[in-house]
Amino acid sequence: MSINLLDSLTETLLMGPGPACVPPAVYQAIAKPTIGHLDPRFIAIMDEIKARLQQVMQTRNRLTLPISGTGSAGMETAFVNLVEHGDRVLILKNGVFGMRMVDVAQRLGAEVDVIEFEWGTPVDVEKVKVQLASRSYKIVAVVHAETSTGAMNPVAEIGAAVKPTGALYLVDAVTSLGGIPVETDAWGIDVIYSGTQKCLSCPPGLAPVSFSDRAVETLRARRTKVPNWYLDLTMIVDYWQGAKRAYHHTAPINMLYAIDAALEAILEEGLEAVFARHAETHRRLVAGLEAMGLSMPVAPASRLPMLNAVRVPEGVDEAAVRSRLLKEFDIEIGAGLGPLAGKIWRIGLMGHTARAQNVDRLLDALKKILF
Amino acid sequence: MSINLLDSLTETLLMGPGPACVPPAVYQAIAKPTIGHLDPRFIAIMDEIKARLQQVMQTRNRLTLPISGTGSAGMETAFVNLVEHGDRVLILKNGVFGMRMVDVAQRLGAEVDVIEFEWGTPVDVEKVKVQLASRSYKIVAVVHAETSTGAMNPVAEIGAAVKPTGALYLVDAVTSLGGIPVETDAWGIDVIYSGTQKCLSCPPGLAPVSFSDRAVETLRARRTKVPNWYLDLTMIVDYWQGAKRAYHHTAPINMLYAIDAALEAILEEGLEAVFARHAETHRRLVAGLEAMGLSMPVAPASRLPMLNAVRVPEGVDEAAVRSRLLKEFDIEIGAGLGPLAGKIWRIGLMGHTARAQNVDRLLDALKKILF
Repeated sequence: MSINLLDSLTETLLMGPGPACVPPAVYQAIAKPTIGHLDPRFIAIMDEIKARLQQVMQTRNRLTLPISGTGSAGMETAFVNLVEHGDRVLILKNGVFGMRMVDVAQRLGAEVDVIEFEWGTPVDVEKVKVQLASRSYKIVAVVHAETSTGAMNPVAEIGAAVKPTGALYLVDAVTSLGGIPVETDAWGIDVIYSGTQKCLSCPPGLAPVSFSDRAVETLRARRTKVPNWYLDLTMIVDYWQGAKRAYHHTAPINMLYAIDAALEAILEEGLEAVFARHAETHRRLVAGLEAMGLSMPVAPASRLPMLNAVRVPEGVDEAAVRSRLLKEFDIEIGAGLGPLAGKIWRIGLMGHTARAQNVDRLLDALKKILF
Repeated sequence: MSINLLDSLTETLLMGPGPACVPPAVYQAIAKPTIGHLDPRFIAIMDEIKARLQQVMQTRNRLTLPISGTGSAGMETAFVNLVEHGDRVLILKNGVFGMRMVDVAQRLGAEVDVIEFEWGTPVDVEKVKVQLASRSYKIVAVVHAETSTGAMNPVAEIGAAVKPTGALYLVDAVTSLGGIPVETDAWGIDVIYSGTQKCLSCPPGLAPVSFSDRAVETLRARRTKVPNWYLDLTMIVDYWQGAKRAYHHTAPINMLYAIDAALEAILEEGLEAVFARHAETHRRLVAGLEAMGLSMPVAPASRLPMLNAVRVPEGVDEAAVRSRLLKEFDIEIGAGLGPLAGKIWRIGLMGHTARAQNVDRLLDALKKILF
């Protein structure tokens, strides 16, 4: 019976790779009365969301809106709107989400080149420059915060290397947005996407995207229709910013209430204060883990504050630890993905989760389980 | 300020083409605490949703699950998983959503044939038989309830005609599911999709889909990868029904709480009782409209109970009427789409909205505005 399953849900401290904890104002927003997707009151909310997204993404891009799907729909949107058959795409890969980019782009008929870097280490910009000097690309793509490893890529520096080549610069900011600076315009990013369930502290279900004017021109100049009706931005923008607000698909109304409230909370706290809170909480976690004798595979300079990879100590059943954390302490942490499965835990300090008392609660629980 | 925009939202009587009114239990469900998408408690909720969807869709199909997007993502999912370049698809078209099917299928490289029927009239099964005798198709597709016109297509009869040809039978049940009988297995439907915001009485954001074993075999036998990573069912089913529950994309947790509660409400009332309520409310509306001298373009035998097209009387500014209904009476009704824009209103009696008191409230308001 759903009554039982849903009613028995208790607040869980979400310290995995997302979803993160959701603040009360966002829960209140998501349960506001549903209204129509063409209702003038809803159009005003859409405008507010766009303006707030522009602030959080640090961009003046007109095409800035949340796609009606989860973060991976953002990735799909970014590639499907720009890739045509045979287009050359360079992907800088050092984790699961870079790998996913390769799969997405190849399915769309792109000719994909990959520079692979060791998982857990950042992209080496010099190697990127060498590759960019040897071949021209329509798109160069990288993941800002590799959720699978906890490593941060030097997105600003890569952008500076891409700019003179004329390629479109595509960045995955699913985990970074709202946790560390993401300066879309200043870093020369042409296409960026994110998800709601990480540092935006909103339930999963939407993928904010932003396209530069240059990316929009490329989209408008396609030789072929976007091979995905649902994610075709040439039509979606008519609903989000056209004078007539032409119906494309029914917007996910209540999820949009939620992101509106989530963005408002971030802007009220202030971006700098939010980033500082993530950084401080991260330092507190690292200090506590190291004091317990645990270690982190990512070098300090490349560590993401919101996604902390921690080595599973020898002889410890990592799944059993996660299970006890969840069942006995109401705390979720994440497992390793792909080649890192079984080797690391992933501890998220994302958005509303990133607070000192949450770090202390996790450290206490880990001590009780491990020692 | 979002506080103002969101806080000022009042309950609106949603009598347009969707979204429909949402019952309190669903609002309560959507605001339940977010938990992880791999949490065992969430896996149990997913299993419950699948089982409930099977009941509402009247199918034993194992591949029955909600896609993480709105109803149009359901249409995209249906076609993108089955269409390969050059595949022959027959689309029976008598409204905007049949037109959308043509666009979706053509973008995927299908060779599409269309039989067009006058908008507002049902598909003529004899014409379909003639076409099926002249050419073989991989897929035959039709919209059950054409939301753009208010006409119902004879899905069972078309299914009987398609069956001997061996084609896959694809049905859009976005507006019909939960309002009129949709007998997926009995009618020989291979692929069906719906949306949450119509007769399921849930906010928009999910697209329930179901694939028959034959459709799954076709999917598994593809020569090429599904050209859409986000909607690739070969991977999504590993998360929804695989023993390992392999992560694909982060599920829209709170929307899934909402559909779980919405399906429970329907099954508690009972499918037959729900269909009877829609039929009765429809008769009450028609009687009231006719008593006011208004008329309906769709013949009685083909009228959808949940979507009522009404002719705009000569000399009436149809947009002004809708605007007054919304602003003065908190009632939303829909405009005409495409060639029917300006000519009809669309009055929805979907799900939770389909109640006698709502019909009476609308009729009273219309009388005050029109006379």
